Amino acid sequence: MISPTLTPTLADLYALYDTEQESILRDYFQYLRFPSISAEPSYKADSLACKDWLVEYIRKELEMRVEEWPTTGFPAIFAELNEAGSDKPTVLVYGHYDVQPVDPLDLWISPPFEPQVRDGQVFARGALDNKGDNFYSLQAIRLLRRAAGKLPVNLKLLIEGEEESGSSGLADALPFHADQIKSDHLLVVDLGVHSLEHPRISAGIRGIVTMTVELEGSPTDLHSGLFGGIAYNPNHALVEILASARDISGRITIPGFYDDVVALSKAEAELLESDLTAEQYFAQHGVYPSGGEKDRTILESGWTRPTLEINGLNGGYSGPGFKTVIPARSMAKVSCRLVPNQDPHKIGNMVSSYIQSRVPEGIKCTVTVHGGEGPAARAKLDSKTTKAALAAYSEVLGAPCSIGLEGGSIPIVAQLAQLSGAEIALLGMGFASDLIHAPNEHFGLDRLRYGYACICRILQILGGANQP
Amino acid sequence: MISPTLTPTLADLYALYDTEQESILRDYFQYLRFPSISAEPSYKADSLACKDWLVEYIRKELEMRVEEWPTTGFPAIFAELNEAGSDKPTVLVYGHYDVQPVDPLDLWISPPFEPQVRDGQVFARGALDNKGDNFYSLQAIRLLRRAAGKLPVNLKLLIEGEEESGSSGLADALPFHADQIKSDHLLVVDLGVHSLEHPRISAGIRGIVTMTVELEGSPTDLHSGLFGGIAYNPNHALVEILASARDISGRITIPGFYDDVVALSKAEAELLESDLTAEQYFAQHGVYPSGGEKDRTILESGWTRPTLEINGLNGGYSGPGFKTVIPARSMAKVSCRLVPNQDPHKIGNMVSSYIQSRVPEGIKCTVTVHGGEGPAARAKLDSKTTKAALAAYSEVLGAPCSIGLEGGSIPIVAQLAQLSGAEIALLGMGFASDLIHAPNEHFGLDRLRYGYACICRILQILGGANQP
Repeated sequence: MISPTLTPTLADLYALYDTEQESILRDYFQYLRFPSISAEPSYKADSLACKDWLVEYIRKELEMRVEEWPTTGFPAIFAELNEAGSDKPTVLVYGHYDVQPVDPLDLWISPPFEPQVRDGQVFARGALDNKGDNFYSLQAIRLLRRAAGKLPVNLKLLIEGEEESGSSGLADALPFHADQIKSDHLLVVDLGVHSLEHPRISAGIRGIVTMTVELEGSPTDLHSGLFGGIAYNPNHALVEILASARDISGRITIPGFYDDVVALSKAEAELLESDLTAEQYFAQHGVYPSGGEKDRTILESGWTRPTLEINGLNGGYSGPGFKTVIPARSMAKVSCRLVPNQDPHKIGNMVSSYIQSRVPEGIKCTVTVHGGEGPAARAKLDSKTTKAALAAYSEVLGAPCSIGLEGGSIPIVAQLAQLSGAEIALLGMGFASDLIHAPNEHFGLDRLRYGYACICRILQILGGANQP
Repeated sequence: MISPTLTPTLADLYALYDTEQESILRDYFQYLRFPSISAEPSYKADSLACKDWLVEYIRKELEMRVEEWPTTGFPAIFAELNEAGSDKPTVLVYGHYDVQPVDPLDLWISPPFEPQVRDGQVFARGALDNKGDNFYSLQAIRLLRRAAGKLPVNLKLLIEGEEESGSSGLADALPFHADQIKSDHLLVVDLGVHSLEHPRISAGIRGIVTMTVELEGSPTDLHSGLFGGIAYNPNHALVEILASARDISGRITIPGFYDDVVALSKAEAELLESDLTAEQYFAQHGVYPSGGEKDRTILESGWTRPTLEINGLNGGYSGPGFKTVIPARSMAKVSCRLVPNQDPHKIGNMVSSYIQSRVPEGIKCTVTVHGGEGPAARAKLDSKTTKAALAAYSEVLGAPCSIGLEGGSIPIVAQLAQLSGAEIALLGMGFASDLIHAPNEHFGLDRLRYGYACICRILQILGGANQP
């Protein structure tokens, strides 16, 4: 047993983690076994079971006071432990217990909810996003408290159950809990580190709005011989409408789409300075970066420009062989990533109106903008929160941690920052190669341990410990 | 028992049909119960069982000499009965025992391979196309022979097993059987009558070529936040390529696409004379005729103009809710309907090359032109075959039968006409509302009986009987 000390060192914290490793992995794997897919109604009971397990874990192992906040979607878990004293800051840690759907299931090498370790990587849906990032955050709270006798900061935890579905239930409920979440620092532990040699945390994420477009040309499928050249094929209407929204230079052509985009600050523009070439990007990611606006760099396109992506297309026959059909209906899933000052609601209506305005005679169109939209968010580059995170990462990973932006979205963050009054840090331990949202998602056991150490050190630094 | 007579009247023929009705329906339903879906490999055994049943039926009930012709696909059934004498003409009757796939299965009111009669309509896949048309043709041969003692013409039957998959096996095999199919008249009993009050047979069908387009942007699906605006989304590439192939006036923009289209003959142009309005078309078909070239009439577009249709689209997520994915792959099924003088092989290569030429950097593209293409075919408007068909239809239906063209395709017909040396007639008993190729395909029992009578009368007229 390691005796509590008010200022456990990194070595102390690692030693404690290593003695606890067996129970840490057992509980992490238990967390991963729940198929808590918030987007699919058939997994509702599994999500609730995951939530119950997590509530008990936090209550018993972290000894925090726990509340469940009902929402119109899945309950959020709120916990607090105020033992540092009123002179110490309050830190709010955010994560989510829900995961992405798993299809196509046949591409998984091992079943998505039966965690398997291969070459030091844990393969499971949620291994990283967000059960991995969330679980090492919980270990940091649990073990730092044990090592130090008490936590160096007052701590609040918010773990929601529908981030992957857009957090719309939590967004509605959050204003009623504004007082409870008041805090000084907000750690959003749901992002990336990018590389252990060249770690990078984030100063910003994009916003998002999503929609489903449905076209109907006839009550039933038609024979393409009898009706071909006469009926308007909903597949044709769909490709024409969607193709018209983007020009060959990669620019979105919907009138007004870029109107609210503001110029980058000098500090933000500096974050984009990079000599990353298309070849290097391809070598790193296996993807050629040819999809952005032609006059923008890779980082500029991925971090600071709004997008319109077609996330799904479906209409007619796509099985083996051929079927000479003009389908009755076609559909697309469309989403926009947004940058600061763009309003998701406004953009959703703008894209919807544009699509409706392009529908040809003979075709009926419905556009459903989904809940769960959220604006972009930005961290202050010079806040104590950001500085603590940079210092902790640099120390733990033994390499200077830089700061960048992210192209992804966590819809609730902007609202959470606003209502909590906290300065935010956007961090995590993900690599782009971890295949989150895809088959064979995985996360390194080394990074689970590094992530734990980083959160411990951030809490220590925010609590007033000397930086190394 | 009705005694044989050399010139049975229409009343005699109906009387015989009506006494046989029970066995006719029993055998027709048995024919419909085989799920002989040529496009789907899992139904191979069912298609072969259907063929076996049909061979036995023809041998036993029609007392014809039957051969099976192996092909690279499903065997074709060839039968003949030469008892009319060498002074009588030879008539070749064409049909097919395969049917279209049945998806979406959940839209069928009764199971597609369990025929059910509702309001005088038989609901089943193949009820019309082509088991309905084919089965009354067989009844005409069987019962006319019984009524007359012998058939008034020498008869050949060709019933193939992969028309719905493009007949490519038969197309390869047919040149080896050219001598066997030599005939004077070819009845292609796989088309429509359109209306019993205003019957119409056909003087032409369009050709067809089909292809599958597959795009790949990355080895696995990508997160649309991390890669959105950077990676080229294969869904975007697909809609851009396909939308570019057709302009807003409905004209196909692929260079050379219309080059081989020849001007209509005066007689053909007369077939298009019609005052059919868009409103009338909508009232008849439930489909607004807004999909053709803007400067063409409905009949012109549907009968005499080539098309490029997107028969299927698929890429990414199209389930409930939303998934923020950039798919690894997207695909489309594309087909062209062709008019006389257009070569399916040439058009297939032209469309494939066009698509390949539009593929953006970062996307890999494969276009597979399927077998089973076939050129357009035309019947002579003043041939004995056409005249016999028009006379028979007018007599049986008690209304003057007109002649038009068809937008559909039967790929083997042009080759069959050429190798057999026969004049062709394109006929059948279908309505556009019969939902062939769609859920709830159906066919009227009244038309099964009329179809039988029409074929009987055509054979009698071609055999030299006086016209009424």
